[in-house]
Amino acid sequence: MNGIAPISGTPPTPTLLGVGARFSLHPHTSDFVTTILDALSVPRPTALEVVTDDVSTFVRGTEADVVTYLRDAIAQAADTGAHVTAHVLLSRGCPGETAGGLGDEIAPTPLVLPRLEPTGHAAHAHWSLYPLDDGGPGGRGDHMTHIMGAIEHARDHGIHVRGEHLVTRLDGDLAEVLETVAGTWLAVGRHVRHVVTHVTISVGSPSVTDPAVGDAR
Amino acid sequence: MNGIAPISGTPPTPTLLGVGARFSLHPHTSDFVTTILDALSVPRPTALEVVTDDVSTFVRGTEADVVTYLRDAIAQAADTGAHVTAHVLLSRGCPGETAGGLGDEIAPTPLVLPRLEPTGHAAHAHWSLYPLDDGGPGGRGDHMTHIMGAIEHARDHGIHVRGEHLVTRLDGDLAEVLETVAGTWLAVGRHVRHVVTHVTISVGSPSVTDPAVGDAR
Repeated sequence: MNGIAPISGTPPTPTLLGVGARFSLHPHTSDFVTTILDALSVPRPTALEVVTDDVSTFVRGTEADVVTYLRDAIAQAADTGAHVTAHVLLSRGCPGETAGGLGDEIAPTPLVLPRLEPTGHAAHAHWSLYPLDDGGPGGRGDHMTHIMGAIEHARDHGIHVRGEHLVTRLDGDLAEVLETVAGTWLAVGRHVRHVVTHVTISVGSPSVTDPAVGDAR
Repeated sequence: MNGIAPISGTPPTPTLLGVGARFSLHPHTSDFVTTILDALSVPRPTALEVVTDDVSTFVRGTEADVVTYLRDAIAQAADTGAHVTAHVLLSRGCPGETAGGLGDEIAPTPLVLPRLEPTGHAAHAHWSLYPLDDGGPGGRGDHMTHIMGAIEHARDHGIHVRGEHLVTRLDGDLAEVLETVAGTWLAVGRHVRHVVTHVTISVGSPSVTDPAVGDAR
């Protein structure tokens, strides 16, 4: 991703940093159970932890494995032709999730994600990013500067980016949307320990071509 | 809500504070367009701003009007008998949304929501809260203390509360879930200017009784 360079040294492991995701998949079809089960069953590395309950699915592993699985699962559901929405939360550095021994002094991971292969699915997304920047020994934090920097990174990435009330809109291939969301989350993680991002991703909505739904107000 | 008391004085208006919501509604049925349009059309005060696009719906107004509309719209969709999931974001104090003239010195709203009438719909939710606490002139912030305090408030409220990876699970009537999410968001807003909360709310999922979906992993 443009503007995000790797730094040297061995980064802490994803487990040590509490890297994880939660996502829910919503096929707008009466055949939703089969679509969800098929999507969650896409091939994945055995090291990736995937636990589903009745509300969402928890995913834990390396950042690259997590994001690749999200792309593959959402694309699999979208391949059915149904209108599918996914809601994704990515988190790192939450004190309740980090392994013991992670001190304040440890530098956040400078990881760069590999490029994700495009899926062929046009995705429309509402994205938000929460750098939980308490500041440091020297004084207060500055979460808005990190957010504005992330939006600039997203624009550099070439995806269509537009500010909306309370969220930033992203339009592009499903893989580009996930790359942008995960790449900026990791970039902010170079400066802030605990960073969470949320994105609602819509694929195959009739509203894109049917103004009746888009104009409901 | 227990533990959250009103304070005296006239609070800033919701518009001045940038109070707003985004939500998306996902009926897991092939008849989703009608269900969504009917839900968004539930009666609401004329002062409440509701703008829908192809990804989500933006809602702006007083905190009580916003939360009441969310309850009514989600309940209307659930009344169809479909499995419905809603994803809700509530925000206040975002610098990009606050009206001009809101200085750093203005105390956050100490608003207490009215009790919401129960809907009769059992809801199962994954909730997260983001106090974007940069700290003050005196030093650094402490977002985790606010989060832990909010979870304690939720337990006091009588709803079923359970910690999960990356989120807190809430189980109760749809109205109780929304009251808890909004009440704690406002309570933290007494101490932190910019506070956002996200919740994924599931109603009528077959997974609650069908372990086949709950065990997909």
